[in-house]
Amino acid sequence: MTDNSVKHTLYVTIFGTHTRAGKTFDIALIIAIISSLVVLVLDSIPSISAQWSRELKYLEYTFTGLFTIEYILRLYCSPKPMAYAKSFYGVVDLLAILPTYLVLFFPSASFMGVIRALRVMRIFRILKLVRYLQESNILLRSLLMARRKIFIFFTTVAILVTIFGSLIFVIEGPENGFTSIPMSIYWAIVTITTVGYGDLVPQTGLGKAIASLTMLMGYSILAVPTGIFTAELHQEMQSHKSLVKCPNCSQSGHDSDAMHCKYCGGELADPDQRVVTTKSSFFLVSCR
Amino acid sequence: MTDNSVKHTLYVTIFGTHTRAGKTFDIALIIAIISSLVVLVLDSIPSISAQWSRELKYLEYTFTGLFTIEYILRLYCSPKPMAYAKSFYGVVDLLAILPTYLVLFFPSASFMGVIRALRVMRIFRILKLVRYLQESNILLRSLLMARRKIFIFFTTVAILVTIFGSLIFVIEGPENGFTSIPMSIYWAIVTITTVGYGDLVPQTGLGKAIASLTMLMGYSILAVPTGIFTAELHQEMQSHKSLVKCPNCSQSGHDSDAMHCKYCGGELADPDQRVVTTKSSFFLVSCR
Amino acid sequence: MTDNSVKHTLYVTIFGTHTRAGKTFDIALIIAIISSLVVLVLDSIPSISAQWSRELKYLEYTFTGLFTIEYILRLYCSPKPMAYAKSFYGVVDLLAILPTYLVLFFPSASFMGVIRALRVMRIFRILKLVRYLQESNILLRSLLMARRKIFIFFTTVAILVTIFGSLIFVIEGPENGFTSIPMSIYWAIVTITTVGYGDLVPQTGLGKAIASLTMLMGYSILAVPTGIFTAELHQEMQSHKSLVKCPNCSQSGHDSDAMHCKYCGGELADPDQRVVTTKSSFFLVSCR
Amino acid sequence: MTDNSVKHTLYVTIFGTHTRAGKTFDIALIIAIISSLVVLVLDSIPSISAQWSRELKYLEYTFTGLFTIEYILRLYCSPKPMAYAKSFYGVVDLLAILPTYLVLFFPSASFMGVIRALRVMRIFRILKLVRYLQESNILLRSLLMARRKIFIFFTTVAILVTIFGSLIFVIEGPENGFTSIPMSIYWAIVTITTVGYGDLVPQTGLGKAIASLTMLMGYSILAVPTGIFTAELHQEMQSHKSLVKCPNCSQSGHDSDAMHCKYCGGELADPDQRVVTTKSSFFLVSCR
Repeated sequence: MTDNSVKHTLYVTIFGTHTRAGKTFDIALIIAIISSLVVLVLDSIPSISAQWSRELKYLEYTFTGLFTIEYILRLYCSPKPMAYAKSFYGVVDLLAILPTYLVLFFPSASFMGVIRALRVMRIFRILKLVRYLQESNILLRSLLMARRKIFIFFTTVAILVTIFGSLIFVIEGPENGFTSIPMSIYWAIVTITTVGYGDLVPQTGLGKAIASLTMLMGYSILAVPTGIFTAELHQEMQSHKSLVKCPNCSQSGHDSDAMHCKYCGGELADPDQRVVTTKSSFFLVSCR
Repeated sequence: MTDNSVKHTLYVTIFGTHTRAGKTFDIALIIAIISSLVVLVLDSIPSISAQWSRELKYLEYTFTGLFTIEYILRLYCSPKPMAYAKSFYGVVDLLAILPTYLVLFFPSASFMGVIRALRVMRIFRILKLVRYLQESNILLRSLLMARRKIFIFFTTVAILVTIFGSLIFVIEGPENGFTSIPMSIYWAIVTITTVGYGDLVPQTGLGKAIASLTMLMGYSILAVPTGIFTAELHQEMQSHKSLVKCPNCSQSGHDSDAMHCKYCGGELADPDQRVVTTKSSFFLVSCR
Repeated sequence: MTDNSVKHTLYVTIFGTHTRAGKTFDIALIIAIISSLVVLVLDSIPSISAQWSRELKYLEYTFTGLFTIEYILRLYCSPKPMAYAKSFYGVVDLLAILPTYLVLFFPSASFMGVIRALRVMRIFRILKLVRYLQESNILLRSLLMARRKIFIFFTTVAILVTIFGSLIFVIEGPENGFTSIPMSIYWAIVTITTVGYGDLVPQTGLGKAIASLTMLMGYSILAVPTGIFTAELHQEMQSHKSLVKCPNCSQSGHDSDAMHCKYCGGELADPDQRVVTTKSSFFLVSCR
Repeated sequence: MTDNSVKHTLYVTIFGTHTRAGKTFDIALIIAIISSLVVLVLDSIPSISAQWSRELKYLEYTFTGLFTIEYILRLYCSPKPMAYAKSFYGVVDLLAILPTYLVLFFPSASFMGVIRALRVMRIFRILKLVRYLQESNILLRSLLMARRKIFIFFTTVAILVTIFGSLIFVIEGPENGFTSIPMSIYWAIVTITTVGYGDLVPQTGLGKAIASLTMLMGYSILAVPTGIFTAELHQEMQSHKSLVKCPNCSQSGHDSDAMHCKYCGGELADPDQRVVTTKSSFFLVSCR
């Protein structure tokens, strides 16, 4: 068995999802990821952390060890190691193991612990197992198509909260808790997003009037991102339908989970394969 | 009168909705269900419960008795008793009577009392009386079509609240009320869904910045489930229209509540019958 | 000048909107309605009410007198007085004057004062002045078309808040403020609508978990009414477009505010007139 | 070099975006605008303002000086100075410099300081640099098309909050914090927009019932602006697509960021140029 064939077998097992070994690996990986997150969460609860400190630490080291081995194997068997290391998942995989080592070698860097929480993003990796990625692609592409409109929306929101925050700062002032413009902008964000903690509320009549305006503004401009996304998703779903063609009668317009042509009954390409042949394959490839 | 014909008459009365007896039974049933819920609610109010304890208990036993007889009759007259017992409504019907018996025989199991609240789900059963089930089917099918996209959305929200919760835990810490990661995830859910109780609010500047980000995130990703459902519902409504054909001129595209063909004026099939002939009949049957 | 012609002139002035006198009357009416509301609001502010009590009372009597005269004239000149009296606007017009008389004759009936606030609904009357009623009709018809789906949605929400309210009542109990099931259902409504006052919050871990579920539920089912309304409005706007036909080239598909045919440039019917010839005229007539 | 050519060069640099000088000017301007805003915000934080008072003041004067020079140059080189001064951006540009002078000459007018926050609106000016304005036009036109429906929606909300506010005022009364109708309307706005500060909550059972109704109302009518905007945006996006024609094969329906015809591959007009030839150019021109 040559070095290359070992590499290839490893590659198919670790990166692939179609072989039996690949599926077993993926299921083991998702169990490891979720278990390591549970350890992280349990460690943060004082009563549990005090009693099981030792056990949780050992589990933490075990998972970090496993993930380190997995990361090294991925680098080793990948045809383009640097491409993997610099990809989204490559960075997430590294961030999942790095903090534990940093805390180990530099005990003062305890704040790095939180980056361990990014480990949860590894769950995305498993999603490609199932056919969900195709829907995920539709959602992602809709967001991508709408990115400029969303950017304009967020710029508008940023401008609105600055203006309303500044207004309420002048009207209410530090004596009512609005101690500075950043604090007032925080209030404006709490209000415009309709969160409404209530830790900072206007006390004067004019302040309440401005607050009412901010609320109504926030309440109605919520329509904008929803409208943008809905319109894009609608187009995306329709164009997606027209992308799939029946190999038998060449007619398109099939649902994304259709297995047979709805006109002649001929078998359609497998949904997972099918998507690879469209431009959405960009996502599948870039997410490897 | 044979045993079989008694069975069939009972079946038509209890499960059916088209005979006079069936309609009377259904109306009596909905009154009983709502009355039993009112008893449940009144029993929970201390001042009323103290004064009318005895009467409420007797009413409770009466309703449980009635529902028990109904459940046994359903089992008896159903052509496939096990299919009914295992169906959604069969389980709900059982859950509506079981808790009272459990409390009766095991007085310590008082916490089971809450499952009695599930009795309210029995109201769904009555909905099939009216023509509403057809719209209900459209809504259900839209949700069913969108289930994968909704799953991806909830996974994303779960990941976001874990990350933001962990971040705020490290930034604010136990001294500001964020005592553990689960507690901080609870805060993140309160914030990202724009509920904003205000029982737990960030105190530091950095914490407020993270909170602002969480709010804006929650405010704008609300667009995603709305977009998904709207797009699916739109498709569902259009495909539903094309399912109904005029028996006279064979043209389709009629509204779901249309009684006459909009092109030739010919009478269309009764909306309630009509839906049974389409694939949406799956729901009507499975909800029996 | 016969009695009939006086009646007709009055009718055209008071109910009509196309003559100069009719427009002047409508503008005077809207000023009177808003002024009477301002008086109502000012009367509720303790500091103002104490100082201007006498003046506000006289203004109140003046407006009630004016509205009484208007109501009698409407009854007098209307071709079908009873139809007017029983219409939506007829009831609102009566409710706007009745409370003042009741308070005058039965001083103890001071709680009736609030029904005066319904006077604000009279503003709807003025809306027909402008072309807005047409858009209003599209919105109303969309809601009307969606009424069954909306009913199903509200039934589902009612069931959800009952179940979640009952659950939190059992979990948190009276010691944490959840004193009864109605109180807990109130909490569930506050939470599921993402209002989140924070006057009642779960204290236990399990309670927080149930609360999180309620929030996520409320956050995502918001998509349902939005989806329903958007889909209906979309259809309504498209069918509305096809209702308007060019008298010159007979082509349809014109925007609701178009004055000229977009294909041949021929003048289209006046938007206000146009709508009367469609089925949406139902609303115009019923709102008289 | 004639005076006219100087004017034209200045005009192209300051108002234009296609020359190298124009782009450099625009980038310098956006940096200056954001920097001046940072100074404004820092000045409002007590701890920073106390220590760096002098430096912040000087920076403030410097930015005001720069913006004054810019404003004068714009007036000078614009072919129609009055049109610029009266345009939206002309007013914003003036408002950005005026307050500092007012505070300088009338030290008591310190409240004018807040209008300086309007300076942030100048950022809009920069947006035209990039291709984002085209999407911005689609969003603006959708809002413009929907303005009457939005007006009806806001009128309805205004009526609802008046009615619910008046009701809660009578039910809860001053002893529970609802001191006047304006105060109660403020509560109704906080509730109907699902903000829910919690500074004012109903205490009585009936008050809680009215509050629940207000919340459910607010929760579901949120569907209305979203539906309106989504439906308009959908139409706008489709009509926009049909506006762009391929110069080679004359087929339309291209995406707004398409560079090549999707049917024949022929090069399409540059997106930025393209939009100028449609009716949406109104916005580009009016925003100059």
